[in-house]
Amino acid sequence: MTSHLDALENDRLRGFLRNAQADGPIMVVDSEVVRENYAKFARALPDTRVFYAVKANPAPEILQLLADLGSCFDCASVVEIDMALATGVSPDRISFGNTIKKERDVAAAFARGVRLFAVDCREEVEKIERAAPGSRVFCRILADGAGAEWPLSRKFGCVPEMAADVLEHAHVRGLTAYGVSFHVGSQQNNVGAWDAALASAAGIFAECERRGVYLSMVNLGGGFPTRYLKDIPAIDAYGAAIFEALKAHFGNRIPETIIEPGRGMVGNAGVIEAEVVLISKKSDAEDEIRWVYLDIGKFGGLAETMDEAIRYPIRTAHDGDAVAPCVLAGPTCDSADVMYEKAPYALPVSLSIGDKVLIEACGAYTTTYAAVAFNGFAPLASHVI
Amino acid sequence: MTSHLDALENDRLRGFLRNAQADGPIMVVDSEVVRENYAKFARALPDTRVFYAVKANPAPEILQLLADLGSCFDCASVVEIDMALATGVSPDRISFGNTIKKERDVAAAFARGVRLFAVDCREEVEKIERAAPGSRVFCRILADGAGAEWPLSRKFGCVPEMAADVLEHAHVRGLTAYGVSFHVGSQQNNVGAWDAALASAAGIFAECERRGVYLSMVNLGGGFPTRYLKDIPAIDAYGAAIFEALKAHFGNRIPETIIEPGRGMVGNAGVIEAEVVLISKKSDAEDEIRWVYLDIGKFGGLAETMDEAIRYPIRTAHDGDAVAPCVLAGPTCDSADVMYEKAPYALPVSLSIGDKVLIEACGAYTTTYAAVAFNGFAPLASHVI
Repeated sequence: MTSHLDALENDRLRGFLRNAQADGPIMVVDSEVVRENYAKFARALPDTRVFYAVKANPAPEILQLLADLGSCFDCASVVEIDMALATGVSPDRISFGNTIKKERDVAAAFARGVRLFAVDCREEVEKIERAAPGSRVFCRILADGAGAEWPLSRKFGCVPEMAADVLEHAHVRGLTAYGVSFHVGSQQNNVGAWDAALASAAGIFAECERRGVYLSMVNLGGGFPTRYLKDIPAIDAYGAAIFEALKAHFGNRIPETIIEPGRGMVGNAGVIEAEVVLISKKSDAEDEIRWVYLDIGKFGGLAETMDEAIRYPIRTAHDGDAVAPCVLAGPTCDSADVMYEKAPYALPVSLSIGDKVLIEACGAYTTTYAAVAFNGFAPLASHVI
Repeated sequence: MTSHLDALENDRLRGFLRNAQADGPIMVVDSEVVRENYAKFARALPDTRVFYAVKANPAPEILQLLADLGSCFDCASVVEIDMALATGVSPDRISFGNTIKKERDVAAAFARGVRLFAVDCREEVEKIERAAPGSRVFCRILADGAGAEWPLSRKFGCVPEMAADVLEHAHVRGLTAYGVSFHVGSQQNNVGAWDAALASAAGIFAECERRGVYLSMVNLGGGFPTRYLKDIPAIDAYGAAIFEALKAHFGNRIPETIIEPGRGMVGNAGVIEAEVVLISKKSDAEDEIRWVYLDIGKFGGLAETMDEAIRYPIRTAHDGDAVAPCVLAGPTCDSADVMYEKAPYALPVSLSIGDKVLIEACGAYTTTYAAVAFNGFAPLASHVI
């Protein structure tokens, strides 16, 4: 008998799911894949420190593994800082990378020993001055995000022209103006996307130097993709392109660098096993499209299907059978809980109610995005093996 | 000294918030407002049974109050059914109103005594036949939702032409073909929106009767609005328009009716007190817009700001001062966590970092929508007074 699990190439995940007794959707992360991803980043960017973006998946087992491998941590909140510290790492391996921080949270991070903070305006610099005196700050600049699949807004960062002012402000206030950061957009498929931002960064280094402020670090951010339905460049290709861009813009004075992979570190390490709750049509018309309803949706962990941005690979026990398009939706009573409709999803026509399906490349931005109890449904269950 | 709380008209909420010690955003629901709303529905639609849509806000205190007032409950899952039963109501006051149900969940509801189920296709009818034999079913039909502010998709319901077939299928399978349901779209500002759907329902009643299947109930759904920034019609006006439409389409054979208010029952009963974390600009240009970042956003409870659909009233201690537009965003490191940008929000220019603000009309679709731990932020705290 064919099982949907036969479609899964990873034996460890398959073995775990075969024995799992879950009434609802279940996510499993393979820590061995995370270990391989870390090694790939370390090889591709040998002189760059890795700050794992905790928000992508803060499972304690993942944080412990990465801590043991030597990773640092990019944290968005004091809770994430405490999660990172719980692995035993020293606070100098932690960056408070959110540009939007309450002053009392800056103070709480400072009290825990954190000395590295992101800013993108003078107002945030002044919070750091008061609550974390003497710390290092880096200024985030806007990058255009062309080539990225997950929408990038202007929410974080200032225009490059303002960055030198912000950093000089930090310097004058007794902080260490440490460097520049940017984000080229999540799920960035263009290895050349870092070039323009590095040109801006080099310009800010030069301008600061003219003002007597000496920067030393470029935070290259995240954006490294995971494989969904389309092939993606290897991490090595990103490393090579970034190194070329660093040489082009900084010459023989290449700065210290940091990366903040999240999706690229854990995305391909996780799968979700879900169940087909209903397959139906809205009318008896010959060409009416099927609606396939799963027991997971936009509010249960698949929030990145918002605007149909991230398109997950879905495997079934019927792969190889004839396929037809369907609208894919979640189980809640919310009209907006539809994953793929504008671009329908091709699934086997033989798919049946009650079948299990595997949603691949779900390791990042799923468990923590799940709604706490919408429609009474429990948040996504998660296991790390 | 002016407090942001002075902007709040409800003394009970104001008193509670004045004494609340919250480090993060906090929601408070005034049960007296829920009580008034229930009375208004009962007055406006005296012959209609109220099935409160539990998903709008399942706080136990709200369910208990509504149970005591005589309300029935529209439940989306077995967990919600258990929450309703915990108030002590008998299972004949519960409807399993989700058209997308696992067969084992239908069985679980049946075991608890629930005998009323929503369907919108033959496949779902067959689950009810097997797992809840002899129960009542109503068939949901598609309605166009024109005039509604929260997007309505084709996710629920079949075309009216298919409904008689679905209901006849139920009848043949030994179920009670009980009636028809529809939803005119959430936050529906047009009191006439029920008319077209009631015409369809009457047509389905007639067609079923021709086939020897006698329906007796119309479920008028929800859609009753709450007041955000714009005025809305009074509930009485909805009641009058619905009664006229019922008379027009059913003549002197007016069926039993049900409504499923959620937003209309609890929306205006709740406020969220939040904090301004940061106010900044992206450049030093004269006409650059302010970004105002709160400690609550799209992933912390304000999910209905998706596509800028629901526009909440926001009160500050500076109301009355000059205002200027701003982009309003949440505290997470997610680019998509922006509430109002396409249509910027006017807030006082005197608003400062650290100020508290009141977000009004937050009683519905907030607490349960909050992400479980995105970026390490705790889900929205909630109190019912």
